[in-house]
Amino acid sequence: MTGTLVVLTIAGSDPSGGAGIQADLKTFASHGCYGASVITALTAQNTTGVKGIHPCPPQFVEQQINSVLDDLDVRAMKTGMLHDAEIIKAVVDSLKGLCSSSKLPPLVCDPVCVSTSGHTLLQEDALKTMITDLFPLSTLITPNKSEGELLLSRMGVNLKIENLDTMLAATETLLSSGCQAVLLKGGHITARMKDVVSVQERFPDLKVIKQGLLGENMEILLDSSQHSSFDDPELVVDILLESEKRTTLFVHPRVDSSCTHGTGCTLSSAIASELAKGSSLVNAVKAAESYTHLGIQCATPIGKGHGPLNHLHNIRLSLIPRRTSSNPYPFTQMLIESAATSWKEYVEHDFVRQLGKGTLDRSRFVHFIKQDYLYLKYYARAYGLLAAKSSSFGSIQSSTQTILNILHEIGNHKMFCLTFGITEEDLEKTPESPATTAYGAYILDTGLQGDTTKLIMALIACLLGYGEVGLWLKKQSNVESTWVVLEGNPYKHWIEEYSGEMYQEAVRMGLETIESCAVADPPSEARLNEWKAVWERCTKLEKGFWDMAMELR
Amino acid sequence: MTGTLVVLTIAGSDPSGGAGIQADLKTFASHGCYGASVITALTAQNTTGVKGIHPCPPQFVEQQINSVLDDLDVRAMKTGMLHDAEIIKAVVDSLKGLCSSSKLPPLVCDPVCVSTSGHTLLQEDALKTMITDLFPLSTLITPNKSEGELLLSRMGVNLKIENLDTMLAATETLLSSGCQAVLLKGGHITARMKDVVSVQERFPDLKVIKQGLLGENMEILLDSSQHSSFDDPELVVDILLESEKRTTLFVHPRVDSSCTHGTGCTLSSAIASELAKGSSLVNAVKAAESYTHLGIQCATPIGKGHGPLNHLHNIRLSLIPRRTSSNPYPFTQMLIESAATSWKEYVEHDFVRQLGKGTLDRSRFVHFIKQDYLYLKYYARAYGLLAAKSSSFGSIQSSTQTILNILHEIGNHKMFCLTFGITEEDLEKTPESPATTAYGAYILDTGLQGDTTKLIMALIACLLGYGEVGLWLKKQSNVESTWVVLEGNPYKHWIEEYSGEMYQEAVRMGLETIESCAVADPPSEARLNEWKAVWERCTKLEKGFWDMAMELR
Repeated sequence: MTGTLVVLTIAGSDPSGGAGIQADLKTFASHGCYGASVITALTAQNTTGVKGIHPCPPQFVEQQINSVLDDLDVRAMKTGMLHDAEIIKAVVDSLKGLCSSSKLPPLVCDPVCVSTSGHTLLQEDALKTMITDLFPLSTLITPNKSEGELLLSRMGVNLKIENLDTMLAATETLLSSGCQAVLLKGGHITARMKDVVSVQERFPDLKVIKQGLLGENMEILLDSSQHSSFDDPELVVDILLESEKRTTLFVHPRVDSSCTHGTGCTLSSAIASELAKGSSLVNAVKAAESYTHLGIQCATPIGKGHGPLNHLHNIRLSLIPRRTSSNPYPFTQMLIESAATSWKEYVEHDFVRQLGKGTLDRSRFVHFIKQDYLYLKYYARAYGLLAAKSSSFGSIQSSTQTILNILHEIGNHKMFCLTFGITEEDLEKTPESPATTAYGAYILDTGLQGDTTKLIMALIACLLGYGEVGLWLKKQSNVESTWVVLEGNPYKHWIEEYSGEMYQEAVRMGLETIESCAVADPPSEARLNEWKAVWERCTKLEKGFWDMAMELR
Repeated sequence: MTGTLVVLTIAGSDPSGGAGIQADLKTFASHGCYGASVITALTAQNTTGVKGIHPCPPQFVEQQINSVLDDLDVRAMKTGMLHDAEIIKAVVDSLKGLCSSSKLPPLVCDPVCVSTSGHTLLQEDALKTMITDLFPLSTLITPNKSEGELLLSRMGVNLKIENLDTMLAATETLLSSGCQAVLLKGGHITARMKDVVSVQERFPDLKVIKQGLLGENMEILLDSSQHSSFDDPELVVDILLESEKRTTLFVHPRVDSSCTHGTGCTLSSAIASELAKGSSLVNAVKAAESYTHLGIQCATPIGKGHGPLNHLHNIRLSLIPRRTSSNPYPFTQMLIESAATSWKEYVEHDFVRQLGKGTLDRSRFVHFIKQDYLYLKYYARAYGLLAAKSSSFGSIQSSTQTILNILHEIGNHKMFCLTFGITEEDLEKTPESPATTAYGAYILDTGLQGDTTKLIMALIACLLGYGEVGLWLKKQSNVESTWVVLEGNPYKHWIEEYSGEMYQEAVRMGLETIESCAVADPPSEARLNEWKAVWERCTKLEKGFWDMAMELR
């Protein structure tokens, strides 16, 4: 991932890594975003609770924010634990000072008040400052039930949030605080599908997004699955109210898990990440809800209390280093290194060395070029198979062009053979050696068994290996006191062909092809291992081909 | 990734996200590790430099460490900026207090003293405390040139580190401080391959690991590449000295980049991550060097000064939600949702509805079962192709078993047809409808074109769709006031077959097969799109099959 979209969190630190800026940074990373983080307060906490809080001086919060916003192009922000009114004022002042309100990046305000374990994370007297000063700058606020009730009471409304109807009423009042949207989280409220349906019937404009639930025409997925539409599962409903009264319900099955530490931090960070990518608010919330719920489902308990959700459930390691200008062929290099021994035995074979010296026995070379003629028939057919397996005219064209090139090469091959006294008739009458059959048939078999990429992997070792041999011999011939002799070497023509510009141009196209394959369709470990196995097999079959020539088999 | 291996950083905070605990947490995440982070000091900084520092009270550093080590099973640790002697003492005390030295997880100490921009990050008087108290607990210390010189001067040695020989001398003295190993980073020293060779000749036991450089037999990769072995590139050499005098040189080409903010933090965190996974020290350093250097190469400049390296270069998003006990068929659900309209048109087709009601015109059903007979010939052949493309006896076995099952089904099919007055001769004489040819030939073509997984994707819509139709009709028949009639329905036998246990068992095996494919070989976006396209095409061909029956084509 490129990781250049900057998302900023302004929140507390959780050293145990499950909540606070730690959860935020993990969430940003697993959305491919670049995380920046201003710390409002240090906590000493773990999965069992908050042990201590050390707030940061408000001026230093301001200094941190300024250092980030002065330098980086922040695309979205979130706030978490803000601790007290002075810190909230410092945040508001620096945001207002640095960005004129119209240019302020989207801000998701998670009005963290009390930890799950019951520890006060926001001084009571700070609530009012948050409502009057911070909410008007916020694209979205994301209170849960108890935060919602606290905020409402400060807004002069005494409402217990207990069901979907009171949730709907609460979002309306909260929206009147001046924020642009409210996401009221219903994790502490039990709802059933009939409640959702009832709300839907009374408010037809309201949109319902079901996630993690099976939809229609999925009877086959029901049987062994826990969320059965017959069983009337407990649901978690989060309600999003945007201005102009657009209401969206996000409906999930309740996941039975103790790994919920940091859920609120994670959800708001995921929303901010999606907003940074340019998603609409509804789509941002939808993706973030899905990420967060899967994080809970995929968590492995850590620690003695409420473990954190799994922030990394949606990422995996890529196996091939990225192509860069200073490293243009990382995949080919990986292939060569993965089978270094057999690659070396192939490209520095005795046959090649004797050929370079000009001492190679003529009968061995003759045996080689005869068998090479027979091999090239397989090789041309394999490109026919590649054309047959193609999905686009472009790839049909390039496979066909390669066949034409091979046929042209065959013409040269025949003329070259004549200089060794071998006629076309001799070539056609030559019995095929087992080494030739093994290599040729292996390529065709690989092509019949796998997809086009696997076939290309089987074709490439021959192209690249002869290019390597050509360049290696050529390079040696340029060194003083070399063993490679070009003048008077009966095989000079052969060496010059494979080190020549025309063949090397084909090598570069081959390199480009396999590197592009690896970029366009980055392999899983299983597939990469398959590709490596094909590569290694072919280097061994190439060595076998030269063994055959040396032993006149 | 599971992210359950806990790695702890004890360091300063960089709000701009490129260094400090932020860089550490990003590095842990991109190694699939769970990051915990104790903060020693807040900084206000960005890519242009450090603007301010707010150290944390030493007791609160201790409280943070205790809250982490009390609760989490920490597998490796690193320290970064420790600011002053009191904080170092607090770190040492809590580590000693909580873990008896033998049980202390591996500790990588990055002796951060001065920022790249020249800001003091460790009080001068703290150096001695670090050497005497922290180094003896450290598995590895990772100074750079200037940190190394500072440390040496405190150890009473006046040495300028300027080349490989002085680096080697420095590592020996540093090791005598009581740490278990020293990695002296040579980023500020210019070296050439001849210097490496010279050291190698004088110290034959010394190991050299070249990374990011082309090895032997890679002439073909040289031409268009910047690091040419002919050009004598500038090298960066880091030297690892372990106890018992084992020395390893890590040699890299120097990367010309301004994106080096946080390189030291990142390297030590990557080493800690690898140690947490159980790597040997040499392998940990090797992997971490490679990760860090690629991070510099893959960086896109951020900010106005020295941008951070790219911490996310080695991860990518996975596209299919993880299988969990509450969500056992995420891939199949994704397929169904990706082609929801055509899937619905297929499984709720008028043919199916009329069949459920028992009102389906007999001639239409007869046309259907005749064509189904012809289709099953393609279907059995496609499993023959799957057997031919298999790599293991296991998959040859299961494809063959499926063919035997189809042949058995054909027996039943013939008997069932007889009840409609259709003989085997009638079946064999039936001209094949274009819809039958289209579907059957599409499956075979897909199998010839792609790999086994793609063929399985082409085979699965038929298996799952008929199971869905069977269950849907069966479910409707159990509802009061239903339109599905079983008693007296001429097609009752058909409905019961596809909703029956035997067929549904095959459906479950099919679900298991494609879910396992997606887990064993997680697809790239390109491959996933290919699979979805095959799935959608098949649902449309299935619908076309029933259109054909309704229209008697």
